[in-house]
Amino acid sequence: MKALRFENDELKLAEIIKPNLENEALVRVVKSGICNTDIEICKGYADFQGTIGHEFVGVVEHAADAPDLIGKTVVGEINAGCGKCQLCLNDDSRHCPNRTVLGIAGRDGAHAEFLTLPSRNLLKVPETVSNEQAVFVEPLAAAYGITEQVEIFPDTCVAVIGDGKLGNLCAQSLALESNHLYFIGKHKEKLSLVAGCNIETVLLEDAKKLLKTFDVVVEASGAESGFEFALDLLKPRGKLVLKSTFHGAAKWQAWRVVVDEITVVGSRCGRFAPALRLLENKQIAVENLISEEFNLNEGVRAMARAEQKGVMKVMLSITN
Amino acid sequence: MKALRFENDELKLAEIIKPNLENEALVRVVKSGICNTDIEICKGYADFQGTIGHEFVGVVEHAADAPDLIGKTVVGEINAGCGKCQLCLNDDSRHCPNRTVLGIAGRDGAHAEFLTLPSRNLLKVPETVSNEQAVFVEPLAAAYGITEQVEIFPDTCVAVIGDGKLGNLCAQSLALESNHLYFIGKHKEKLSLVAGCNIETVLLEDAKKLLKTFDVVVEASGAESGFEFALDLLKPRGKLVLKSTFHGAAKWQAWRVVVDEITVVGSRCGRFAPALRLLENKQIAVENLISEEFNLNEGVRAMARAEQKGVMKVMLSITN
Repeated sequence: MKALRFENDELKLAEIIKPNLENEALVRVVKSGICNTDIEICKGYADFQGTIGHEFVGVVEHAADAPDLIGKTVVGEINAGCGKCQLCLNDDSRHCPNRTVLGIAGRDGAHAEFLTLPSRNLLKVPETVSNEQAVFVEPLAAAYGITEQVEIFPDTCVAVIGDGKLGNLCAQSLALESNHLYFIGKHKEKLSLVAGCNIETVLLEDAKKLLKTFDVVVEASGAESGFEFALDLLKPRGKLVLKSTFHGAAKWQAWRVVVDEITVVGSRCGRFAPALRLLENKQIAVENLISEEFNLNEGVRAMARAEQKGVMKVMLSITN
Repeated sequence: MKALRFENDELKLAEIIKPNLENEALVRVVKSGICNTDIEICKGYADFQGTIGHEFVGVVEHAADAPDLIGKTVVGEINAGCGKCQLCLNDDSRHCPNRTVLGIAGRDGAHAEFLTLPSRNLLKVPETVSNEQAVFVEPLAAAYGITEQVEIFPDTCVAVIGDGKLGNLCAQSLALESNHLYFIGKHKEKLSLVAGCNIETVLLEDAKKLLKTFDVVVEASGAESGFEFALDLLKPRGKLVLKSTFHGAAKWQAWRVVVDEITVVGSRCGRFAPALRLLENKQIAVENLISEEFNLNEGVRAMARAEQKGVMKVMLSITN
């Protein structure tokens, strides 16, 4: 089968053997989405070698332990825990120390004709959710997951820094909880994608008026400078939610976190079920985030496109 | 009067005018303690110029709005808020944006014959608390204040990194809450100061066995490497309490905070009243932390001594 792989510092479309794991479900991938993490992996993040990609929708072809899934359209939780440790037993395999992660750690990913995952990781997609929407379940779960880490009330003042795909989903998610949601970015056209969502959009250059205004700031710009600016925006004792993963070490003024008694909350993943419900209930708009769709055969070109300025979600469609 | 001052990049004992503020209490300083922050200020931290020092015990000589304090032995909350902003009105002048801070920001400090503070900042010292003990109220309040920021239960696994003065007070404070307190440092003799306090002491070189073990780690070493090591020790979703303030920017692997969904809690100050009670109830031992006492006249030498390896608290006694 075809797969988009990062190996020996090189990204390429390769022909590999179709996976065949008796104890996992086999999923024929229909569409996959390119995430910034895919791009970071190709710069060395997470030391991953193999098929990249972790946002997908597909159809189950084989699932020995869950025959009801066969033929169903599914999305899949990307962390596969050992199933035995205390974290897994507490339903938190997202943090299992021996976990593999689809297309990120120890497990081939979704930019391929087929993938495998434990059947317990798969969730059926409701009929009213399109394939295009379903590809967004993983990043939307990560965005909406913030609400399980940080209490947000209607009067909580929240800023989201970064008008890319993840920032957009964070802004939309948190605007469901807060009536004071400010979405800050560099690009008027990207900010305008949330029009009508109960969100105040602010160009970065104008956000300097908003210093020490916010109870919660979400850093989703992926830029090193985003961290310092988030500190600028926060009230004392505020909460800085850190969403971006990027390769390398950032410099930061630790004393500012101490003096203002800021809480920095690292935030990676979220649960899939609430994200699917948000899409089913039309509470989050995702289709306007799609910039372009390529065939898997053009995967290398699609990745290059995803890295270009101004581009939002690049999708891959997989035709067998 | 005499005062130990940092001005124009130079630390010196100077003769300055005795302060005279009608709307503040005048305190004759009896003893003061040298804090690492004093040393950091002399390296440029906080951009402070003036009399340094913020740990003290003294006797009130004048207090127009609180005559009952006159002649009483007091300690003093070091943050003086504007008294008018929302934070001050909510009894949180420690974060007032217009605050001055004794010997740290906009206000001459305690290594002097006299200081002034608003009388509302002063707390009477109970008779059973010695002057030497009372000097520790400020750092003890900062250490015990962690318990107001992070929930610690008897079965919470806690590590404190850094066997200096602040680390010692953090370890003792948190051992009052947790039955699993590990105190990690480089110096056997410093670690031994907490003998009999329900604390497990661990040399840094042996702590490498404890990776991913702790729910809460307090970084009080003041070293840049302490942050990374704290991340090594934490379980996923653990809490890293950051106590050290030092000049400059540290490099950190932000992605580790995101991937393990760590919460970093900046922690600076605490309330004085609970700290005074801990000393009154003999729940915290502080006198064995005193390495040496100098007269204010020898303040420059005392500061040099405080910076030497192996030295714990250096005190100044002020005789008029």
